[in-house]
Amino acid sequence: MKAKINRQFCLASRPVGEIKENDFEYREQPIPVPKEGQILVRTIYLSLDPTNRIWMSDMPQYMPPVEIGEVMRGIVLGRVEVSKTPKWREGDLVSGLLGWQDYMVVDSETVSPVPQVDGVPLSAFLGPLGITGLTAYYGLIDIGRPQPGETVVVSAASGAVGSMVGQIARIKKCRVVGITSSAEKCRWLTEELGFDAAIDYKTTELKTALAAACPQGIDIYFENVGGKILDTVLTQMNLFGRIPLCGLISTYNAIEPVPGPYNFGQILMKRLTVRGFIILDYASRFGEALEEMQQWFREGKIKYTQEIVSGLENAPKTIHKLFNGDKIGKLLIKVSE
Amino acid sequence: MKAKINRQFCLASRPVGEIKENDFEYREQPIPVPKEGQILVRTIYLSLDPTNRIWMSDMPQYMPPVEIGEVMRGIVLGRVEVSKTPKWREGDLVSGLLGWQDYMVVDSETVSPVPQVDGVPLSAFLGPLGITGLTAYYGLIDIGRPQPGETVVVSAASGAVGSMVGQIARIKKCRVVGITSSAEKCRWLTEELGFDAAIDYKTTELKTALAAACPQGIDIYFENVGGKILDTVLTQMNLFGRIPLCGLISTYNAIEPVPGPYNFGQILMKRLTVRGFIILDYASRFGEALEEMQQWFREGKIKYTQEIVSGLENAPKTIHKLFNGDKIGKLLIKVSE
Repeated sequence: MKAKINRQFCLASRPVGEIKENDFEYREQPIPVPKEGQILVRTIYLSLDPTNRIWMSDMPQYMPPVEIGEVMRGIVLGRVEVSKTPKWREGDLVSGLLGWQDYMVVDSETVSPVPQVDGVPLSAFLGPLGITGLTAYYGLIDIGRPQPGETVVVSAASGAVGSMVGQIARIKKCRVVGITSSAEKCRWLTEELGFDAAIDYKTTELKTALAAACPQGIDIYFENVGGKILDTVLTQMNLFGRIPLCGLISTYNAIEPVPGPYNFGQILMKRLTVRGFIILDYASRFGEALEEMQQWFREGKIKYTQEIVSGLENAPKTIHKLFNGDKIGKLLIKVSE
Repeated sequence: MKAKINRQFCLASRPVGEIKENDFEYREQPIPVPKEGQILVRTIYLSLDPTNRIWMSDMPQYMPPVEIGEVMRGIVLGRVEVSKTPKWREGDLVSGLLGWQDYMVVDSETVSPVPQVDGVPLSAFLGPLGITGLTAYYGLIDIGRPQPGETVVVSAASGAVGSMVGQIARIKKCRVVGITSSAEKCRWLTEELGFDAAIDYKTTELKTALAAACPQGIDIYFENVGGKILDTVLTQMNLFGRIPLCGLISTYNAIEPVPGPYNFGQILMKRLTVRGFIILDYASRFGEALEEMQQWFREGKIKYTQEIVSGLENAPKTIHKLFNGDKIGKLLIKVSE
């Protein structure tokens, strides 16, 4: 069962527009050997995230882009196979910013521990109880500062982060409205996750639908997409509203410069706060959030769904699902048992 | 000397592009008579401010626009001529959001007291020791949160607000760089006001000049103008930078929709905070700022310049100076002695 080689996908070319399979190059390498102070990690799950598209580009970004020829960067949950450090034991479950490959050797500080909790599938620690959930939590709580009775709108609402944002906002006693891209997703948000309303922006006039769903205006807009949706939401923000800026997915595949929102002036008129964040900035505070979220999880207040595709070899042909609206919840590749 | 009539300028039409003289209509009315609880105020100084252009339009804005036919709204410093309330005595100096006219009757709560301080010209209370100074103070201190050694860039730097922002930032031990529109203004900023550097964006390539003037990057950008200048500054902001959004003067005369900054994504990548503000939101805290600013003023740490045009009749043909770069510092109309 164990691979004798290390399969890797490297970045072959920077995507122009949508990611294509041949933007990646398949390679086989010997399984690397850790030195003193290092560990060998074997990938169990590889997380596919919209931010991968940023790393593949050379746009100005929040960490160095992946270089051409380098192993593609990815969030990985894996198992320690060999440990040359007292910090980790063989068999420990870890996660970190690793790569699209079966095996990697890393320093002991590069990864964080993943707990094993009865009744919680391991994959949840790359989703609601991992980076995804933390992103939703800190963006909403720390930047959005939701107050009971306020109205929270979230875009890409049926995505991994968006669906968590809405549920946390409900726990915080807010009215929650999701913007998404199909009737099926709308049903999932309102019937399964408890959103107060959901809007399919592809088949409804967003401005009218938003006004109907947010009769008291919008206090917090958790932004994942940018573009025209942001422009429309800006006109319906309340005074002193907050906009945690988590992603701008509608712009990542752009091949020409994308203008900012035409209603940018509303930030001034309505005295809005727009604040960008990257979840890694909150690393020192992850503990507090995870404790609270695990509690909600145990109480059944947090639901989630994942699409798990088996086989590292399928990563290059699966990642486009992040961008074409063809998934609900979290997208993962299962690389090994 | 006293007028027997009340001269008024009313809004005749909403400007298309630049403000034209005939967007105002001159009228003569009897001097109004206050009722119980009211006062009659006579205008001494009328402040001309970029925000006047917003009020003249029907763009979505932070207070109701001036209606066609209504007396043009303006910030006024005046004297109580008749008082029908124990709160004010005849001769008291007051300021408030009043109008382009000689006289107006208002309720006692509509205006605030203006102190008389030896050696301080009255007009300063519409400038550095009034709304202008308060705007600079709260935008910079409360939203910008300047730390010693940080780099502060301010646009429209030789304007009434911008010139104050730079001086307060210097007092807070920041490196201060002003963006302005002539060599003469640059000289004034660096030689008279103590800015570390000033850039004439009309004759230099802003990107290069900014990089040279801000070798440590930009921590705070106090924004008065928007448009291309904002776009360029965004690329040079430091991680966790702050952008107090005070004005977007480059867009006020636009006759077509204006896109937001093309580098909007930098707000995400650099984890910036962009926050709009209107000085009236800080009204309950004006006292603390004024005390500190009067102290700086007495110590000679705050310099300012004003262009004072005599005669209410000249207001309509003077206001365009706010937008064409044809002034330094504060623009005032002297209406009476």
